[in-house]
Amino acid sequence: MSFNHFDSKGQAIMVDISAKQPTLRTAIARSTVQMQPATLQMVVDGALAKGDVLGVARLAGIAAAKKTPDLIPLSHPLALHAVGIEFNWNLEAGSIAVEATVRAFERTGVEMEAMVAASVAALTVYDMCKGQDKGISITETLLLFKEGGKSGTYQRDAAL
Amino acid sequence: MSFNHFDSKGQAIMVDISAKQPTLRTAIARSTVQMQPATLQMVVDGALAKGDVLGVARLAGIAAAKKTPDLIPLSHPLALHAVGIEFNWNLEAGSIAVEATVRAFERTGVEMEAMVAASVAALTVYDMCKGQDKGISITETLLLFKEGGKSGTYQRDAAL
Amino acid sequence: MSFNHFDSKGQAIMVDISAKQPTLRTAIARSTVQMQPATLQMVVDGALAKGDVLGVARLAGIAAAKKTPDLIPLSHPLALHAVGIEFNWNLEAGSIAVEATVRAFERTGVEMEAMVAASVAALTVYDMCKGQDKGISITETLLLFKEGGKSGTYQRDAAL
Amino acid sequence: MSFNHFDSKGQAIMVDISAKQPTLRTAIARSTVQMQPATLQMVVDGALAKGDVLGVARLAGIAAAKKTPDLIPLSHPLALHAVGIEFNWNLEAGSIAVEATVRAFERTGVEMEAMVAASVAALTVYDMCKGQDKGISITETLLLFKEGGKSGTYQRDAAL
Amino acid sequence: MSFNHFDSKGQAIMVDISAKQPTLRTAIARSTVQMQPATLQMVVDGALAKGDVLGVARLAGIAAAKKTPDLIPLSHPLALHAVGIEFNWNLEAGSIAVEATVRAFERTGVEMEAMVAASVAALTVYDMCKGQDKGISITETLLLFKEGGKSGTYQRDAAL
Amino acid sequence: MSFNHFDSKGQAIMVDISAKQPTLRTAIARSTVQMQPATLQMVVDGALAKGDVLGVARLAGIAAAKKTPDLIPLSHPLALHAVGIEFNWNLEAGSIAVEATVRAFERTGVEMEAMVAASVAALTVYDMCKGQDKGISITETLLLFKEGGKSGTYQRDAAL
Repeated sequence: MSFNHFDSKGQAIMVDISAKQPTLRTAIARSTVQMQPATLQMVVDGALAKGDVLGVARLAGIAAAKKTPDLIPLSHPLALHAVGIEFNWNLEAGSIAVEATVRAFERTGVEMEAMVAASVAALTVYDMCKGQDKGISITETLLLFKEGGKSGTYQRDAAL
Repeated sequence: MSFNHFDSKGQAIMVDISAKQPTLRTAIARSTVQMQPATLQMVVDGALAKGDVLGVARLAGIAAAKKTPDLIPLSHPLALHAVGIEFNWNLEAGSIAVEATVRAFERTGVEMEAMVAASVAALTVYDMCKGQDKGISITETLLLFKEGGKSGTYQRDAAL
Repeated sequence: MSFNHFDSKGQAIMVDISAKQPTLRTAIARSTVQMQPATLQMVVDGALAKGDVLGVARLAGIAAAKKTPDLIPLSHPLALHAVGIEFNWNLEAGSIAVEATVRAFERTGVEMEAMVAASVAALTVYDMCKGQDKGISITETLLLFKEGGKSGTYQRDAAL
Repeated sequence: MSFNHFDSKGQAIMVDISAKQPTLRTAIARSTVQMQPATLQMVVDGALAKGDVLGVARLAGIAAAKKTPDLIPLSHPLALHAVGIEFNWNLEAGSIAVEATVRAFERTGVEMEAMVAASVAALTVYDMCKGQDKGISITETLLLFKEGGKSGTYQRDAAL
Repeated sequence: MSFNHFDSKGQAIMVDISAKQPTLRTAIARSTVQMQPATLQMVVDGALAKGDVLGVARLAGIAAAKKTPDLIPLSHPLALHAVGIEFNWNLEAGSIAVEATVRAFERTGVEMEAMVAASVAALTVYDMCKGQDKGISITETLLLFKEGGKSGTYQRDAAL
Repeated sequence: MSFNHFDSKGQAIMVDISAKQPTLRTAIARSTVQMQPATLQMVVDGALAKGDVLGVARLAGIAAAKKTPDLIPLSHPLALHAVGIEFNWNLEAGSIAVEATVRAFERTGVEMEAMVAASVAALTVYDMCKGQDKGISITETLLLFKEGGKSGTYQRDAAL
């Protein structure tokens, strides 16, 4: 049993994937932001009228997916073929889930790209609401689904 | 009541801080990663022997703090003067907290730099352990403390 | 008479500004995109309903202002204090003007930051409309105004 | 009729190109800078003797083509296979055209890479001449040609 | 005889590689840092106990390999498939060699990626030791080996 | 005696410089490239006629100085105020020295910015000549001079 970002001497490496064949990879990650219901109401209203918090966060997440090789030290540079961000909210609870989907025809998985996209979109929601709501926080960031590659399909049982 | 990253027409802007005087700003954020106790044991052992997950994550967090203006769309480019990352873990619970402290003598706060540093360090722990532990997740990312600037000191009551 | 990005031997340099005192600098640049009136109508409607071309372009322009030192080879890294993007359109003519305003308390001017922000916002409008409208083009990119620094105020007489 | 950078709900996405086959793509874009004939004379002389404005602008354009995914929010990261920049000038008119050619064997077109390269090279010419010539401006940025992909060849009728 | 980063008019270009077939490419480069034996002893001890200079330098080198297209003006963006950094030292001589190995299935070689990785890892060792040892320097940076592509295998005879 | 990029527990940190006062800092670094005299002759001729290797390398060095915080993990983001690159060559010996000078009014020194600028300019010379001259190498990278800050002036006795 071992960590696959280290070689046999325990040194950090970018693992060799040159012998792997590209296959279609998909990953979906979710990051949830918790705020006061009144703040979330403003966010949701803003998205429809003016002050589009979610539009800004969506773009931040898509841009961040492309920066993954620059952020995660041992990740491979990948040619992303699709990135999308969805928001789902619960107004009573004051929670909003950011769901990032990434797809690429590549030699390794795109889980980290999805995780980074969801995290940075959530951090952007946080940034735009923190002046309004001191207690806002991100309450989870996790992988929901992945497909493609020899390790097969993964589906987390994670009801919102 | 309004969001301060939008102008009066609801358009996203980088808010004008040119009239503000620089003051010393500090912010501390925390991101917690939850994994199986056996995985955490390996991480902690690795840090002492070989396969230094936490050393890699610490550098990823420090590097990410410097990339904040590139990640958070409406944030200002700031001249960071100090960045540090501490880890605290609970072996029985399988949880490890990443605590990022950022300091700068600047016209605006460094909360987002601390939040980004903690998040990216936690994402890097996630990346390095995910092959070992499918269920690993980040269970919180929040601001613990900030000081400096006219909005004063903020201290979250957030026992680990 | 000479170009100030070269030394006395004609070699490209980042000019020494260390002896200059910081002053408040403002620059406003404009980039205009010309498309078919029907396309512009869709852009403008989209901004109000769904498919927010201008919201995406605004964020691209703000982000690009921060990347100016990375794009313009001999420019200085500057601590931008304010960036805003306004759009003004003429539906009959099919033209939309992107106006970028940048401000900083710095040792050199922020004209290039404003020019880059206007250009990249216009390129983003172009990108999002080009599938719809093959003949779309950017018809001007110019400096409208600058203030601060010893060369004084500049105001272009440039009616839209 | 619709914009292809938005999904059916009008949300910005990086469009899924994973099912497309790579083909050879070429795009040529042009950006024209207008200055006083005396300034252009200096630029052209400089390129031959000392103070090489066009050499600096050419490199800025090539470097910018590689940064396109970082500048244009919904663009895909592409593996560029060729980038070149040509200059053509009219000394009497004081105009100089920057022509950028980009080529890649990819799943989507390289129009934006060519547009970004031409724009940033033109902005760099602007930057280096603006101290000399306050009225300098960029008078057009447009796509001249594209080839490859299912939408076929496009050739603009655009005499200089 | 000519330089292959210029066209027939002597203008800098990113050379067209679109007609080449991808093959497996490997390159190994070495950069050597010379310091006082006492400093090197501290570095080596630190790697085993606390203050992990070599761990930091290794990550800096891996990250820099991914930034090669951004650093070397006429280089192509490549999808790196493996990056590793090894250190070998001579305690008596006070010298430590950084050896970077890069591999990719690509249309052009990865020599510059290996050279950049070795250089930046060596510069990071320099940075971390310079407060301790004013006379520290990098005494060589060179290509040891390359394989793949039509120019064949290259092996430098370069005993440490 | 200790390394100043680690805290008392041996953990890597960006050292706190917030209490330091800005002063004028200068640093000069040199990197030397060794090639066959015939290759160097071509480089030097090219700089005067066509195929401007040194012009490309100069811009690469200036651009790289600005990227130092992104390359050197524990370095601070600094507002560079001047960057220049000079070349001096010995045609008989086939050696060319790249000398980078960096200046800033800052809280910490600019040695690493000068070292990075010299290294990347030298790597670019290497890149552009390697097709011509397999044995080319970089034979030294070192700090020549620094001034400013409480550690005082440093002058290396390093005849070319």
